[in-house]
Amino acid sequence: MAEPIDFYFDFSSPYGYIASHLIDGLAKKHGREAIWHPILLGAVFKTTGMAPLVGIPLKGDYVKRDFIRTAKFMGVETFTLPDPFPFSSIQAVRAFVWLEPTRPQKAHELARALYGRAFSGHRIDSTDAVADVAASIGIDRTALLSGIESPDVKDRVRVQNDAAMARGVFGSPYVIADGEPFWGVDRFDQLDKWLETGGW
Amino acid sequence: MAEPIDFYFDFSSPYGYIASHLIDGLAKKHGREAIWHPILLGAVFKTTGMAPLVGIPLKGDYVKRDFIRTAKFMGVETFTLPDPFPFSSIQAVRAFVWLEPTRPQKAHELARALYGRAFSGHRIDSTDAVADVAASIGIDRTALLSGIESPDVKDRVRVQNDAAMARGVFGSPYVIADGEPFWGVDRFDQLDKWLETGGW
Repeated sequence: MAEPIDFYFDFSSPYGYIASHLIDGLAKKHGREAIWHPILLGAVFKTTGMAPLVGIPLKGDYVKRDFIRTAKFMGVETFTLPDPFPFSSIQAVRAFVWLEPTRPQKAHELARALYGRAFSGHRIDSTDAVADVAASIGIDRTALLSGIESPDVKDRVRVQNDAAMARGVFGSPYVIADGEPFWGVDRFDQLDKWLETGGW
Repeated sequence: MAEPIDFYFDFSSPYGYIASHLIDGLAKKHGREAIWHPILLGAVFKTTGMAPLVGIPLKGDYVKRDFIRTAKFMGVETFTLPDPFPFSSIQAVRAFVWLEPTRPQKAHELARALYGRAFSGHRIDSTDAVADVAASIGIDRTALLSGIESPDVKDRVRVQNDAAMARGVFGSPYVIADGEPFWGVDRFDQLDKWLETGGW
């Protein structure tokens, strides 16, 4: 099997949410696996000086319309913009990072469940909300609540976020395939062709 | 014939340049005409607080790679990033605005010629350079040099830029079709489907 591809996303990112519905199928089509990496864009924005999309004059109004239009265009039927938006996804990332080393498949399932919850009119910005989602797919709630408070998990979240930035990740979704970076779900057509042809 | 669609672009915009190769064919496919509107993104950025792409850490490096990859992906064979970049396109816009009321087809031809010049290793950021391009397609050089200095032309450039912002235009390329806005050449797939279906 060829090298896996890396899928970076923020749980608060609408285009990341849309991409989360497509990335595994796209990877599988080309005999690849997609490794999911939740990131904290807030920390990245401190480095790049960028701001959340919706707060930008003119552009903010546009993207709120584009989120919904693009979700439908790409076949994602469920899309409710979270309120508040953007929201803090740090507890969601910690839960993923806590679970991933020992149960990577379950962590992947948790990420999907968290995204589904966040973009269907519910909040996942608190420890309790994240634990509820985890418990709903059979993850031990008490173990998770303890795990996401551990210094080791908090450290790994920071280390993994810094590692993503060191690879050039500045937005969500962001895919790296064979060293080639693709930013945005609107680059999935290019990613598809790149995996098919090896580049141009 | 159905209503024309509005194509907004900055002469210094790589994605606008790519879009300039596609917009007329896309419009024609759906029995539409594309009305070209050169804008000055620098003035728009003052309103939105946005910055030119290439100056942004991480993102700047990415987009320089993406410009070239996207041009090839979309079938645009010639692409050389202007140096300096971004460049001042005010003389180019003035020339277009001077010519457009009396000779709209020629103004359209001039816009294509200016874009072609700017993205093939030459500069169009001076009055002389713009006049050279104009002369090369049979536009009277002396009349143009006089025209682009007229207060009326300068005023209309400002008025038209403000009108674009009033319609929500914040980037390049930006298309408005039947009231629906599409930002970026990467939304041309949605624009195509929108013109085909009337929306979703």
